[in-house]
Amino acid sequence: MYDIIRKKRNGEELTDKEIAFFVNGYTHDEIPDAQAAALCMAICLNGMTSKETVTLTNQMACSGDRVDLSKFGQLSVDKHSTGGVGDKTSLIVAPIVASLGGKVAKMSGRGLGYTGGTIDKLESIPGFRTSLSTDAFIAQVEKVGIAIIGQTGNLAPADKKLYALRDVTATADSIPLITSSIMSKKLAAGAHSIVLDVKVGSGAFMKTPEEARILAESMVSIGKSCGRKMAALLTNMDAPLGRTVGNALEIQEAVDLLKNRRKGDLWEVCVALASEMTMLFREITEEQARVLVLDALHSGKAYAKIREWIAAQGGDLSFIDRPALLPQASVIFPVLSPKNGYIFRMDAEQIGSVASVLGAGRVKKEDRIDHAAGIVLSKKTGDFVQQGDVLCHLHTNDSSKLEEAEKRFLDALVFGKAEPPPLPMVYSTVR
Amino acid sequence: MYDIIRKKRNGEELTDKEIAFFVNGYTHDEIPDAQAAALCMAICLNGMTSKETVTLTNQMACSGDRVDLSKFGQLSVDKHSTGGVGDKTSLIVAPIVASLGGKVAKMSGRGLGYTGGTIDKLESIPGFRTSLSTDAFIAQVEKVGIAIIGQTGNLAPADKKLYALRDVTATADSIPLITSSIMSKKLAAGAHSIVLDVKVGSGAFMKTPEEARILAESMVSIGKSCGRKMAALLTNMDAPLGRTVGNALEIQEAVDLLKNRRKGDLWEVCVALASEMTMLFREITEEQARVLVLDALHSGKAYAKIREWIAAQGGDLSFIDRPALLPQASVIFPVLSPKNGYIFRMDAEQIGSVASVLGAGRVKKEDRIDHAAGIVLSKKTGDFVQQGDVLCHLHTNDSSKLEEAEKRFLDALVFGKAEPPPLPMVYSTVR
Repeated sequence: MYDIIRKKRNGEELTDKEIAFFVNGYTHDEIPDAQAAALCMAICLNGMTSKETVTLTNQMACSGDRVDLSKFGQLSVDKHSTGGVGDKTSLIVAPIVASLGGKVAKMSGRGLGYTGGTIDKLESIPGFRTSLSTDAFIAQVEKVGIAIIGQTGNLAPADKKLYALRDVTATADSIPLITSSIMSKKLAAGAHSIVLDVKVGSGAFMKTPEEARILAESMVSIGKSCGRKMAALLTNMDAPLGRTVGNALEIQEAVDLLKNRRKGDLWEVCVALASEMTMLFREITEEQARVLVLDALHSGKAYAKIREWIAAQGGDLSFIDRPALLPQASVIFPVLSPKNGYIFRMDAEQIGSVASVLGAGRVKKEDRIDHAAGIVLSKKTGDFVQQGDVLCHLHTNDSSKLEEAEKRFLDALVFGKAEPPPLPMVYSTVR
Repeated sequence: MYDIIRKKRNGEELTDKEIAFFVNGYTHDEIPDAQAAALCMAICLNGMTSKETVTLTNQMACSGDRVDLSKFGQLSVDKHSTGGVGDKTSLIVAPIVASLGGKVAKMSGRGLGYTGGTIDKLESIPGFRTSLSTDAFIAQVEKVGIAIIGQTGNLAPADKKLYALRDVTATADSIPLITSSIMSKKLAAGAHSIVLDVKVGSGAFMKTPEEARILAESMVSIGKSCGRKMAALLTNMDAPLGRTVGNALEIQEAVDLLKNRRKGDLWEVCVALASEMTMLFREITEEQARVLVLDALHSGKAYAKIREWIAAQGGDLSFIDRPALLPQASVIFPVLSPKNGYIFRMDAEQIGSVASVLGAGRVKKEDRIDHAAGIVLSKKTGDFVQQGDVLCHLHTNDSSKLEEAEKRFLDALVFGKAEPPPLPMVYSTVR
């Protein structure tokens, strides 16, 4: 291991054997954290060639269990977001794609964050089962076209361990390390086609489209080298996506979009992602895919699919048909605009932290999520507001947090006299 | 700590407060090895400013006990070698300098290596006590001018911990980290003047005078910034220094040099080091210092001083007067030259490893040193030899090691038809 660290430190390329030695040794606790940390820092500063990154990704993908989706052939399709605020696209895109014949078999983490993960959001629905046996999981994907469950087994344990280490050693933001971390999990999850949603902006890890593009290109290229069909969209995360940030609140918004098809930023990103996924698994053009996706939405097929899916996993459909039955917060508090003007900018990450303060997220693993807590935005970037207008409603069961949450929310806004220049929701596509 | 790693990773200068936080936290086990390793790698690759290195050195020097030599004022003087093969200069230089009024209060480690450290060598002398109370240590320095004992107390524990970490994380060879490691121990050891012997060549950490000069300049500058009088000599370590490699064998050679003053590479380096030390603590010119040093040797004052010193620490002087009484190996095996020609080059490090094979060194902390084991060289670089001439004698108590030792020894030599160009013993001085 010493020689491997030294080699990377000197800027040399590691061999497949050396990378395998590291991944195996670290996964099995035979290499101490200190040596792994030194190697990660050397990788951060000296980089990795694309050959090295492919090997690292493959080795981590093979470090534990792998989901076998081979029976679905070309039809299995997955989507991964690099993480944003108010990102409920999986809940919308999966039913669209499944209604077009795609097979979406997703294992989703919980993790720490400003709101829960997709699994936590789904658990807002009474009766919804987030754990299924492998056989039941695969059978549901075959029958319904979608199953989303909590991560079972031991997918890419090497990544799990390395991610925790990088998190405390300031070695998280390295393109080859992010690439191999994300792609190893996606490879282990088994889908034939993978569309990445690389978020860009104030609520995202990548702050500029340039940085995001480098990461997207790296991930697409690694995925292709590993035999998968790949694409990545660079999408805007300068403001929370859609109108809600929370768990039950986001479920409501997702269902509402599939039912009522209200256009907006969320609609736009979901249509782009679903089109890209459909292109890949049906092997058609972008235009053909978009026509199919819009039809799935407008015909009600996608809405029918989300009901079928949720019912299949035990969710009570009365909550889908009447979202007001979902968990409601005891306190719903309006935040009023302190002045007249345009909302010139919103700090999406800061707004995420407001949701967390209200109880929607987890700071520590043991924290319990309040499924009802969160934010419903009335105004977003570009809107003109007058003093006293409602900017948002804070939903919480802990009124002691309202003062801090309101202050943080207002701090996250920049008002301006002029309308801000509009930003695209989808910056570009990497294929 | 995360922010500190990140800052250094981004190539920024750390503040005094940040460096102090790291050194304190790491010394007290509040910062995990993984974070320290990541920081070390970032320092290796992004460097440190001289201001940062001064702070790191001072913080590590203050992390544990400090030896108080203030009662000796300007007269306390220390010497430190970066480590070589056959380096017994301390045993020769300390008596010379003490005979000229210098106060040499040395704490010396044992450590791992091809042969023992100075303390192990001294323990070859029956009766020699390598541990003294602080009071006895200081009193002996006052009376005799020299005391050399094993490290007591807790000098620079931060360095001890960090050194062990760097050793396994390929972060040892970083100029600011080497500088702060060596200088923190020297500062804690308390001497007012410090002369560094920076070894250069096949048996040294630094392979070229250029690299060695960068390290020497860094250490001299840091020492001066911390208020010490400093100099460094760059000396040749392309071949073992002198004729012996071992423990008792090196004691014999050191005593012999002081008694019989045979000139050669060892003599030259010792005179240069002693002159430099004398310059500093007596505040005289180089020429004046050299005259004094040569007089100390030729008048027998230095030889009288080593006897006085060894007697003061309980060593039996009959072994000094008749070195043949020192531990002798049961097997003394001649290695013969396989061909005619000049010895064109010797790999000093490899020859060190021969001594270790014969039993002279420690690979693990628990290993016992065989004080009698080692090598006596009959020929060195530049000598012409005929096939069958004795190149060296291997001394050991474990004859099973002879075959491997002989093979390694011969592998360490390069024969040539022409005489090799002579190399200087002292490349240059950094003041």
